[in-house]
Amino acid sequence: MSDVVCMGEVMLRLSTPLHTRLPDAPFLDLCFGGAEANVAVQLANLGSSAAFASRLPENELGDRCVEALRGRGVNVASILRGGSRMGVYFVSPGYGLRATSVLYDRAGSSMAEATPGMFAWDSVFAGAKWFHWSGITPALSPHSAALCREALVAAKRAGLTVSFDLNYRSKLWTTSEAAEALQPLMEFVDVCVCGADEATSILGAPSAAGSDLERMESSARWLAKYYSFSRVAMTRRSGENAHETGWQAMLLSASDLVISREYALAIVDRIGTGDSFTGGLIFSLLRGDSAQAAIDFAAAAGAWKHTIPGDWNRATVAEIEALAAGRAGAAVRR
Amino acid sequence: MSDVVCMGEVMLRLSTPLHTRLPDAPFLDLCFGGAEANVAVQLANLGSSAAFASRLPENELGDRCVEALRGRGVNVASILRGGSRMGVYFVSPGYGLRATSVLYDRAGSSMAEATPGMFAWDSVFAGAKWFHWSGITPALSPHSAALCREALVAAKRAGLTVSFDLNYRSKLWTTSEAAEALQPLMEFVDVCVCGADEATSILGAPSAAGSDLERMESSARWLAKYYSFSRVAMTRRSGENAHETGWQAMLLSASDLVISREYALAIVDRIGTGDSFTGGLIFSLLRGDSAQAAIDFAAAAGAWKHTIPGDWNRATVAEIEALAAGRAGAAVRR
Amino acid sequence: MSDVVCMGEVMLRLSTPLHTRLPDAPFLDLCFGGAEANVAVQLANLGSSAAFASRLPENELGDRCVEALRGRGVNVASILRGGSRMGVYFVSPGYGLRATSVLYDRAGSSMAEATPGMFAWDSVFAGAKWFHWSGITPALSPHSAALCREALVAAKRAGLTVSFDLNYRSKLWTTSEAAEALQPLMEFVDVCVCGADEATSILGAPSAAGSDLERMESSARWLAKYYSFSRVAMTRRSGENAHETGWQAMLLSASDLVISREYALAIVDRIGTGDSFTGGLIFSLLRGDSAQAAIDFAAAAGAWKHTIPGDWNRATVAEIEALAAGRAGAAVRR
Amino acid sequence: MSDVVCMGEVMLRLSTPLHTRLPDAPFLDLCFGGAEANVAVQLANLGSSAAFASRLPENELGDRCVEALRGRGVNVASILRGGSRMGVYFVSPGYGLRATSVLYDRAGSSMAEATPGMFAWDSVFAGAKWFHWSGITPALSPHSAALCREALVAAKRAGLTVSFDLNYRSKLWTTSEAAEALQPLMEFVDVCVCGADEATSILGAPSAAGSDLERMESSARWLAKYYSFSRVAMTRRSGENAHETGWQAMLLSASDLVISREYALAIVDRIGTGDSFTGGLIFSLLRGDSAQAAIDFAAAAGAWKHTIPGDWNRATVAEIEALAAGRAGAAVRR
Amino acid sequence: MSDVVCMGEVMLRLSTPLHTRLPDAPFLDLCFGGAEANVAVQLANLGSSAAFASRLPENELGDRCVEALRGRGVNVASILRGGSRMGVYFVSPGYGLRATSVLYDRAGSSMAEATPGMFAWDSVFAGAKWFHWSGITPALSPHSAALCREALVAAKRAGLTVSFDLNYRSKLWTTSEAAEALQPLMEFVDVCVCGADEATSILGAPSAAGSDLERMESSARWLAKYYSFSRVAMTRRSGENAHETGWQAMLLSASDLVISREYALAIVDRIGTGDSFTGGLIFSLLRGDSAQAAIDFAAAAGAWKHTIPGDWNRATVAEIEALAAGRAGAAVRR
Amino acid sequence: MSDVVCMGEVMLRLSTPLHTRLPDAPFLDLCFGGAEANVAVQLANLGSSAAFASRLPENELGDRCVEALRGRGVNVASILRGGSRMGVYFVSPGYGLRATSVLYDRAGSSMAEATPGMFAWDSVFAGAKWFHWSGITPALSPHSAALCREALVAAKRAGLTVSFDLNYRSKLWTTSEAAEALQPLMEFVDVCVCGADEATSILGAPSAAGSDLERMESSARWLAKYYSFSRVAMTRRSGENAHETGWQAMLLSASDLVISREYALAIVDRIGTGDSFTGGLIFSLLRGDSAQAAIDFAAAAGAWKHTIPGDWNRATVAEIEALAAGRAGAAVRR
Repeated sequence: MSDVVCMGEVMLRLSTPLHTRLPDAPFLDLCFGGAEANVAVQLANLGSSAAFASRLPENELGDRCVEALRGRGVNVASILRGGSRMGVYFVSPGYGLRATSVLYDRAGSSMAEATPGMFAWDSVFAGAKWFHWSGITPALSPHSAALCREALVAAKRAGLTVSFDLNYRSKLWTTSEAAEALQPLMEFVDVCVCGADEATSILGAPSAAGSDLERMESSARWLAKYYSFSRVAMTRRSGENAHETGWQAMLLSASDLVISREYALAIVDRIGTGDSFTGGLIFSLLRGDSAQAAIDFAAAAGAWKHTIPGDWNRATVAEIEALAAGRAGAAVRR
Repeated sequence: MSDVVCMGEVMLRLSTPLHTRLPDAPFLDLCFGGAEANVAVQLANLGSSAAFASRLPENELGDRCVEALRGRGVNVASILRGGSRMGVYFVSPGYGLRATSVLYDRAGSSMAEATPGMFAWDSVFAGAKWFHWSGITPALSPHSAALCREALVAAKRAGLTVSFDLNYRSKLWTTSEAAEALQPLMEFVDVCVCGADEATSILGAPSAAGSDLERMESSARWLAKYYSFSRVAMTRRSGENAHETGWQAMLLSASDLVISREYALAIVDRIGTGDSFTGGLIFSLLRGDSAQAAIDFAAAAGAWKHTIPGDWNRATVAEIEALAAGRAGAAVRR
Repeated sequence: MSDVVCMGEVMLRLSTPLHTRLPDAPFLDLCFGGAEANVAVQLANLGSSAAFASRLPENELGDRCVEALRGRGVNVASILRGGSRMGVYFVSPGYGLRATSVLYDRAGSSMAEATPGMFAWDSVFAGAKWFHWSGITPALSPHSAALCREALVAAKRAGLTVSFDLNYRSKLWTTSEAAEALQPLMEFVDVCVCGADEATSILGAPSAAGSDLERMESSARWLAKYYSFSRVAMTRRSGENAHETGWQAMLLSASDLVISREYALAIVDRIGTGDSFTGGLIFSLLRGDSAQAAIDFAAAAGAWKHTIPGDWNRATVAEIEALAAGRAGAAVRR
Repeated sequence: MSDVVCMGEVMLRLSTPLHTRLPDAPFLDLCFGGAEANVAVQLANLGSSAAFASRLPENELGDRCVEALRGRGVNVASILRGGSRMGVYFVSPGYGLRATSVLYDRAGSSMAEATPGMFAWDSVFAGAKWFHWSGITPALSPHSAALCREALVAAKRAGLTVSFDLNYRSKLWTTSEAAEALQPLMEFVDVCVCGADEATSILGAPSAAGSDLERMESSARWLAKYYSFSRVAMTRRSGENAHETGWQAMLLSASDLVISREYALAIVDRIGTGDSFTGGLIFSLLRGDSAQAAIDFAAAAGAWKHTIPGDWNRATVAEIEALAAGRAGAAVRR
Repeated sequence: MSDVVCMGEVMLRLSTPLHTRLPDAPFLDLCFGGAEANVAVQLANLGSSAAFASRLPENELGDRCVEALRGRGVNVASILRGGSRMGVYFVSPGYGLRATSVLYDRAGSSMAEATPGMFAWDSVFAGAKWFHWSGITPALSPHSAALCREALVAAKRAGLTVSFDLNYRSKLWTTSEAAEALQPLMEFVDVCVCGADEATSILGAPSAAGSDLERMESSARWLAKYYSFSRVAMTRRSGENAHETGWQAMLLSASDLVISREYALAIVDRIGTGDSFTGGLIFSLLRGDSAQAAIDFAAAAGAWKHTIPGDWNRATVAEIEALAAGRAGAAVRR
Repeated sequence: MSDVVCMGEVMLRLSTPLHTRLPDAPFLDLCFGGAEANVAVQLANLGSSAAFASRLPENELGDRCVEALRGRGVNVASILRGGSRMGVYFVSPGYGLRATSVLYDRAGSSMAEATPGMFAWDSVFAGAKWFHWSGITPALSPHSAALCREALVAAKRAGLTVSFDLNYRSKLWTTSEAAEALQPLMEFVDVCVCGADEATSILGAPSAAGSDLERMESSARWLAKYYSFSRVAMTRRSGENAHETGWQAMLLSASDLVISREYALAIVDRIGTGDSFTGGLIFSLLRGDSAQAAIDFAAAAGAWKHTIPGDWNRATVAEIEALAAGRAGAAVRR
């Protein structure tokens, strides 16, 4: 019985340490990551009850992943065990003008092999209020879009709010393939998180001119209207370095548009920051915060994640609220 | 026979590596730290003869700490061995908008259990010129303030200059408890190091308005007059990030007020920077530098410490003088 | 059969990790470095065929170095084995206002002991187009300058283009000793890389006033004229911190002077950045790029190296070209 | 709702790596351990449902410990949060003729401060079948024995089987203090695990002569009769090195005495091996194994733990059964 | 132009450190391994000229692997670049009674996707004397056996001696599948390395009774006769621990059977020891050693590998010869 | 004012971790070592007052070494600073049949450059009772034997007991060179530690037949008589592995010959074990132990060192006495 159910693939993440590139790494750090699992961990981290539905192989890597999620407080009862392998991705964190690079090795994973009928969705969703998925899952394999549709139908049948993070991955498919697969699934979505470029290239929003914020507002309004999303959330970045970034978020609720303050962030690990934003947003909306409070909380949650190694955030509600309220990192807390 | 005697508690410091928080740390780095021990190491590091008076348990942690201090050149003859345990503190260094956090586990330490009569102060101070203590020690246990008074009386009897760093720790006591304990001990103090806020909340200086420097000057002048301090030193910081800070220092000698240049610092480890400042100040005053030279040297000593991991600085007099003179880090020294 | 032959000493580099200084390092990282080997690796890294001529002891350190170079694609057929020892240098990377410091322990190395007659230069240079050396080698021992002359005569006899990087090392000799040894060898040089200060103090260029770029231009034009260099390349830095720097490069070809854009760089490891610049320059000139393209490529190659640990760059031609074209590190590459 | 409830203190364990002693350790590994938590983890590891009742401070160390236990599948609903601190123990693993040494720093821990009335035992034991405790807990503080009695009364009221591991710790109390505190609590115990020496010095068994096994049998029979234990389990070791040991176990059920085979073990980490034995025994008895099968399984579970770093075993039921059946470590499993 | 060509798959090996199992590993060590690559490295290590023919993806993992092989002196000109991914295997080294375990994730690798026609075998084999392959490759994918046949036909056409190491992997196929695929390829084999059990279950030798050596001799004689192998080599192990083993080797040449002495080995890393044996055998046979000398050298080469971490041996010819001659590890070599 | 003065060279020791050989080491551990410094540390470790006379360069490596010695309690007042460099040695610890190997890079060290007249011996020896040196020092450079003689003359003038450990190093000189240099210095020696082979090849003892102990006795008696040594101590080893060894010691005092029990040792680090033996012997003799007690203590001190990483032992007097009395490593000490 969890308030929020997230569904997707979770992978073994192997990261190079100490600014090395993959050919030079003396060893590899290991953790787990995946857009939807990251959201579930963020929610559990904030004290929400969150479940993660996925499929992992019956081997020690699968065991470790289940343990890691359970340790972080995520309900793992809906993780199926079976299939061929766990997807892997290698991260070489960037610095300065050298960008972070990610090498995926995820084909044929247990979750990619998952087919409709494998999950007992009615049972998965029993007692839940919210379902979160992303645009990565339909790209995993030929039957993955059908699996998503099956879950979405069940979620709607169970009366859940559905959030969706587009997360276009060019290594998995083209924008036109993504458009073809994702657009028909938008009817199930209540809360859409995407980038202004993705809105245009994949969801069909007209391309807009102007500043970042102007372009975000324009496409958000179009998406909300065209797809009847109750909310559209977007984030923007600025700067040209891998170790620092500008960061700001926007939320459109009905016709009401709010923006967070703009952060100037130093980066420890950028992977998963968007997922922390999304998790923070769901958390805040679920507890009934105002739109402005929600986007402030979500932006702060994402901002905080930039200082945490690995895919998974580590912060308390109090820490995120203090950050949203303007308290930053200068003073030693003792 | 050491020129300077520092007294206080030294703890085992366990730090999380690689930007992790305590629940995620793969291992813990270990070193030792404590405000007064840090000053002693800074002095020894600069070539002064410095002794440290404290109490450590008779176990391998106590052995390691004594070795570490002795290795750095600190006279350890006045470290008593006995009592229950060594205090521990856990440091999770911050980055960007996430602040450094410190978790103390110091109750019941051997030094907290130290009582008046345990130290042979006349012998500890034999041949010394200077005694340094801090406002942490009286907070350690009910009898610790009496221990401080005993030491201060002996130091004055032996004709030593006494310096004091207020170092208010809110985990140990309230500001009013601190005020009650510390104010009666100020009569023994010649050189007082504190923050403008501490001057007001604990030592009773009137709260002042204006810029940082104006507030510092105002409270320093009040302190010097009210408590007959021969010198009052203060530092200020600016900025909102855990990995970078502005840094500037001020020294009031008689009615003469001097300030250092303002540094923009990148931070490797901020713990102990104030102690390096204080150690640098004592060193410079002891060798007879002018007030301006002393505050420049002390500010540079503290600035340099921001680049050194652990509580204990590592710098030569030549390096600090070069920094004070404006030579910074751009050129490779080969 | 390699297009470019580099000659010089390569040393074991032992570096302190995690911002520690040498007395505090918990362990030492090890790699290899030396100005000319770094250029060879940079060239091989970019796909050029590069050979390295040197002398290493017949022990496991020598074996490891040969393996490392061969692994990176450098032709090691001209590395002689014999002599007393491998030179070592200890690097304590700086941060903020604390400069990177280098401690050399290179006296009596196998390469310093190399004497004229040891290398079969005609065979080393067979099929090559370019010879690169530096101003470090003549300083290694009393007979090293003669060894350089022997190589230079052979290189010219074989019709190679000769590049030279001055690299003055004050630990090895004085500027006047360097001037005396190096000036007579300039007649063999086609492409000279040096700093504006070195041009004056060692190669005799008149000291110039004005901005960095003006001084660089002035001395480059004098050098090109006085020594008949076909090209002179220089780089400049700005800033006062060890972890960030401004970076810009200039190339004088015949009378045509071009400059790169100015980079604001975050630094992972600064050692070897000049060598990456030089390797990038040789690569670009060899493939026939225009002067502007060559200085842009070389500046970007050097800029990229600032983000790579160790002496040896790790970048593809495509990455450097993208950087030169303005694409930096902000976006995650997945 | 867990089948087995374990109660006791869990501590932060800090271990020296790479055969170092505490004064020489370059860093400290961290995990958690405590006799009863180790049993709970062992049970969860084997697929049993196990809960752990304890008290941990509300800080990041407490959070980490809860996460670690929950990750391993232990029900953490009965872990109270509050109190002063988490106990710490430092382990320096031995090797050869140098014994493993443990330095405790556990006074004043949150669990030591736990008092009767804090735990809602009826709710803790609801649905459970078994309660496990140890002879360490009554030694923690003056009120800890009363806390144990309160739990034991509730466990018996709820009809649970009660197992007890004596675990005498000479740093906490004398044998006569232990005898005085523990003997009155034996009336609640069904399954007693102890050593032959402890049986004599603390539980009052007559001292016996003869071989290890003879002495074990003699005291076990006395204990079973005197205290009406339904079962008594003992293990024995042989050898004189820290990195290898002989290992054998015995179980007395009613009047039926069975022994396991004797293992010759190589040791990675010896801490917690007895707890893995006890957990294996509870697991095996709970699933209705014969006495011989139970002692074989328990002995193998303890044997396997010797190869696993940290306090907590990591093995599947299949692995332990294979070991009990004689399959050891020679063949690579691929 | 290399004397020996080895063909097969090379994988990324990720190993758990410090005796941890995969769910507990704090990080993963990385190297490369694969039966045939291991043989090639062993040969290059001994000074032979060895080439490796394989297929690796065009990504940074592939780059690293090529660099590693080239660094070790292996000719990498016949490594094709392309395909989907690099196979990965996870190794958890065992200790004591816990066996080393290997988790393969190799499906769909670039080498598994290699098809007949991709390699220009005549060019690969030009100038070579020997071809080595293993029974793993035909199991990689449906077309892999045909790829092997293509290579074998070309090798024979070029007049090479062919060696074969059976290396049955139960995760890839059944013994009957292996028998069906491998038996028809035996006609190309001159030197066969296998185990006595494999000889029976896969190559059809009658099962024999008696001691290990008797069973080895019996099946070797049958194999040599039935398949007209010029030589059959086998090794045997004894003991039941993961960290120590008995080790002995046998070679049948024509009708002449020789055995090595039996070693009692302490194990650092057992993976690749058989490949070091095979590489040592090829090396010794190629230089014309007697059968006794060859089996002694090969057995010592394999024995030595047990002390080396990773798949790849590190030993000089002199070291192996000294070991074969009885000089072991007791004295410090300084 | 130290009871014992040791003189010799101390070097930076760089060790490969995790069973790697030098070409494969991922990083290098660093400590310091040298036969005489090791003895001094062993003595200080046991509570004796020990001083070390040597010469170290004025750089950060020298600073670190001084700190390390001082931290361990060694009087460093007689360490001169100056000269060219610190000697370095690389250790690759062996395992099983692979021997530990040492690569020296010590030519031209500051101590090798030390010449007669540099040390103020009368002041160095003031208040001391014992002088210890070794047969390594005379081999360091052409003037090192004269330096030794100068020290020995002064030591005898000051009435000190002189101990000598032969420590023949074949990388530094031949046995005949050693004989020529050392024999004339034996007149100053009271207590001689050497091996039976060294006694013959360097000190001229007749070669003897029989068991190890018989050969040791025979040469010890010859040495004692020929050179008028008051005591001769020897150790013997057995076994053929790098990670385990037999160990036994013998002491001849006047005509009284005693032997220790024979240990079967597991080895963490063998370097420095002989020095720990010698340090233990000096300690025991200085406190007036009987010959049997002294050889038992010394043998146990050396035995214990086999379990300690680095050159320097770490043990208390109580630990060594317990070991000598038969208490070994089986029981966990808590």
